[in-house]
Amino acid sequence: MGGAQGWVSCFLFLMKNKFADLLPGRVSTEPEDLVCYGFDASGLEAAPSAVAWPHSLEDVVEIMNFARSNRIPVIPRGAGTGMTGGSVPDRSSVVVSMERMNRVLGIDRDNMTVLVEPGVINGHLQRELERFRLFYPPDPASMNFCTIGGNVAENAGGPRALKYGVTRDYVLGLEAVLPDGSVIKTGVKTAKGVVGYDLTRLLTGSEGTLAVITKILLRVLPMPEEVITLMALFKDLEQSGNAVTAILAYGIIPRTLEFMDGEAVRAVENFSPVGLPTDVEAILLIELDGDPVVIRKEAERISSICSHHQGEIIMAEDEEARQKIWEARRAISPALYHLKPAKINEDIVVPRTKIPSMLKKLRELSEESGIMIVCFGHAGDGNIHVNIMADKENKPEYEKALGLVKEVFRMTLDLGGTISGEHGVGLTKKDYIGMEISPVEMDLMKKIKNVFDPLNILNPGKIFP
Amino acid sequence: MGGAQGWVSCFLFLMKNKFADLLPGRVSTEPEDLVCYGFDASGLEAAPSAVAWPHSLEDVVEIMNFARSNRIPVIPRGAGTGMTGGSVPDRSSVVVSMERMNRVLGIDRDNMTVLVEPGVINGHLQRELERFRLFYPPDPASMNFCTIGGNVAENAGGPRALKYGVTRDYVLGLEAVLPDGSVIKTGVKTAKGVVGYDLTRLLTGSEGTLAVITKILLRVLPMPEEVITLMALFKDLEQSGNAVTAILAYGIIPRTLEFMDGEAVRAVENFSPVGLPTDVEAILLIELDGDPVVIRKEAERISSICSHHQGEIIMAEDEEARQKIWEARRAISPALYHLKPAKINEDIVVPRTKIPSMLKKLRELSEESGIMIVCFGHAGDGNIHVNIMADKENKPEYEKALGLVKEVFRMTLDLGGTISGEHGVGLTKKDYIGMEISPVEMDLMKKIKNVFDPLNILNPGKIFP
Repeated sequence: MGGAQGWVSCFLFLMKNKFADLLPGRVSTEPEDLVCYGFDASGLEAAPSAVAWPHSLEDVVEIMNFARSNRIPVIPRGAGTGMTGGSVPDRSSVVVSMERMNRVLGIDRDNMTVLVEPGVINGHLQRELERFRLFYPPDPASMNFCTIGGNVAENAGGPRALKYGVTRDYVLGLEAVLPDGSVIKTGVKTAKGVVGYDLTRLLTGSEGTLAVITKILLRVLPMPEEVITLMALFKDLEQSGNAVTAILAYGIIPRTLEFMDGEAVRAVENFSPVGLPTDVEAILLIELDGDPVVIRKEAERISSICSHHQGEIIMAEDEEARQKIWEARRAISPALYHLKPAKINEDIVVPRTKIPSMLKKLRELSEESGIMIVCFGHAGDGNIHVNIMADKENKPEYEKALGLVKEVFRMTLDLGGTISGEHGVGLTKKDYIGMEISPVEMDLMKKIKNVFDPLNILNPGKIFP
Repeated sequence: MGGAQGWVSCFLFLMKNKFADLLPGRVSTEPEDLVCYGFDASGLEAAPSAVAWPHSLEDVVEIMNFARSNRIPVIPRGAGTGMTGGSVPDRSSVVVSMERMNRVLGIDRDNMTVLVEPGVINGHLQRELERFRLFYPPDPASMNFCTIGGNVAENAGGPRALKYGVTRDYVLGLEAVLPDGSVIKTGVKTAKGVVGYDLTRLLTGSEGTLAVITKILLRVLPMPEEVITLMALFKDLEQSGNAVTAILAYGIIPRTLEFMDGEAVRAVENFSPVGLPTDVEAILLIELDGDPVVIRKEAERISSICSHHQGEIIMAEDEEARQKIWEARRAISPALYHLKPAKINEDIVVPRTKIPSMLKKLRELSEESGIMIVCFGHAGDGNIHVNIMADKENKPEYEKALGLVKEVFRMTLDLGGTISGEHGVGLTKKDYIGMEISPVEMDLMKKIKNVFDPLNILNPGKIFP
């Protein structure tokens, strides 16, 4: 037994013994663990050679040192809710799951900051903060499962990004372990700071390719006094887009301005019904927060703008009605799997005035190709989740669907957009990154990767083709 | 004639001839120009060998190529209002003044973005945007002179940063020329984007050491409906700090919450009187913006909080009164030069609850040393401008004053702060950067510098010791 196979055996031996000895009870090479930690929400999968669950900074340093000495790739992982394969491992790599480093280390009410470990669940943090009447805006659809560490690694957004910005806008500072095992502290504990290059924002959105994040200092806001949730129903797709532009042009910035097309509405109603009308071509889901008097005034203005664009407004009268509307929004993604066993989900962004053109082009593309395309997403900031529906078992259909991806990206870029608003590049978009990023910028990025990770052992093969 | 002197002659010859030929009418080696472009607001100065005024991206590329081929350092410059020497040249370098690239290239009302050249004056942009009822929040005290390019290079703040954040929070994308003459485009034209590493924020605040910025896409906001300006007078320094914490803890985030101590007030009244009471120990300058009903309610709440802390509230009844208050705030910095011919101005930040401790420590330091220390700044975000007053001609006094700087920084860092909130490191703080940034982070930053500028010809000698 020699060559590649011999090396694999040797490697597995190393994993099972040395690595397990290193962190007893915090490492597994059991097949069921390898399967469970080998995929994310992109649908991609590949079993790693081991999974580690560090409990502390020191554990992460030890794992990193071991991995480096043995040239084993390290794949940092939050909750595996990523959409682009950012935490999907290579074979012969160690998945480092941060889920046990899940403590909220301190909430500073007066300075409006919170210090957390990366494994804290977004929704858990939200609820903890509510007790102090504080508010952490980023709210990815997966907020009840996804971790803050993963959110930082992907620079996650969410519906409320329209008013409040994305994860990047809330990260004040980080503690992280470099691929060489050294520990860095970036950023500041204060509202401002401009000393040296901005390593904090360089790590934010770097998809786990530069360092393993071990602590996160976030700024938080006072909780808004009141929230109003509205739904606007449109029989005409283009009118809904025009209403979005008109609302924002009026100077109102709702905290969310979500969009779902008729197909998305019907998918929800067919498979997890919440009572949405199915004879519409678009629904806007609008949420306002702030002073009760102001937002009531804004809600009235929005109603009249929507009416002007042939939209019908429904206001959620109580918390139950509100939750129901959001349930519908969150049900879209799972419901779509009932339409077709696979969907290719792209999260493109166009300047928001281009949304009507983009939706029109997507519909034409769907009609020409015969492939169903379902759209929903964050209309307010131009971030559309384009779901190209296809059956993986039906090879010609799936191939055709895959072929549309490039066309969707081309249309997006032609309109001045970007191929990813919040999901990142990971594995699924790396072959397309060159459509958006020119060789000279890509070269800078790769050299930056090399500065942090000269051995290319941290989440290798992601982002760059 | 040989050696160093010969080299200098040869260099000057090159400058006067070849460089002038390259961009006729856009380059000068006249002594008066070299003097005028050799200093900034830090008080440091050193005449360069030439000044260039590019008109276009192509000019910048040509200058950069010429400079690189001849190994001449390039010093990008906005309006020279920087406080830390970031645009102060070396001898034998070319200052590239961006002041003629000063066009507002496009205001997109619907997508709420504006594309500018770097030489656009901040105040000019503010006024242009007002015509469209749009609002660009970052407002450094020098806003009527400083350029957006300089603001981006330094990641400038300003009073309104408390509510609205700093320059970084508004930069969507950049066009820039690398030291090798190639052109990069970073970021997106949309509200969101997460494709590849965040080069936009890496360049923002990099103090002109990584690339020469040639275009800037900014996001802007709808103009707030109304503004209320209040002044709160305190006989007790600590009470003013407590009032700040109480206002913010209540959940009110004013757009500005400025602070000036008694010395600063008296300096203004002695030298450019605007009618402030001189028997106070602190003045807070509070500005609220937004819906008229809401901010009136907030103003009342602030009044009662200040009264509770023995503060007396004065409301600016009209625009004239408002302008007068801001005149006082902007007059502080120049007025201080009347107290002493020199001031060492540091812009430290502490977590805002630590402001009272920091002010107390600074007063003790002043009393112990016999050196006057005047404080003013952005109380809301903990950013205090600490002015150590000394006469440069009085050598022992000035030496002593310089000695206090390190002590001020030590106190700041002990309280969890940072040595620069908005002025950057440049030349004046580079010897202290190691107090805040550890060797491992510094090493990463230097390697990043080397990725962008392997020949070290772009603004060399800045930031890093």
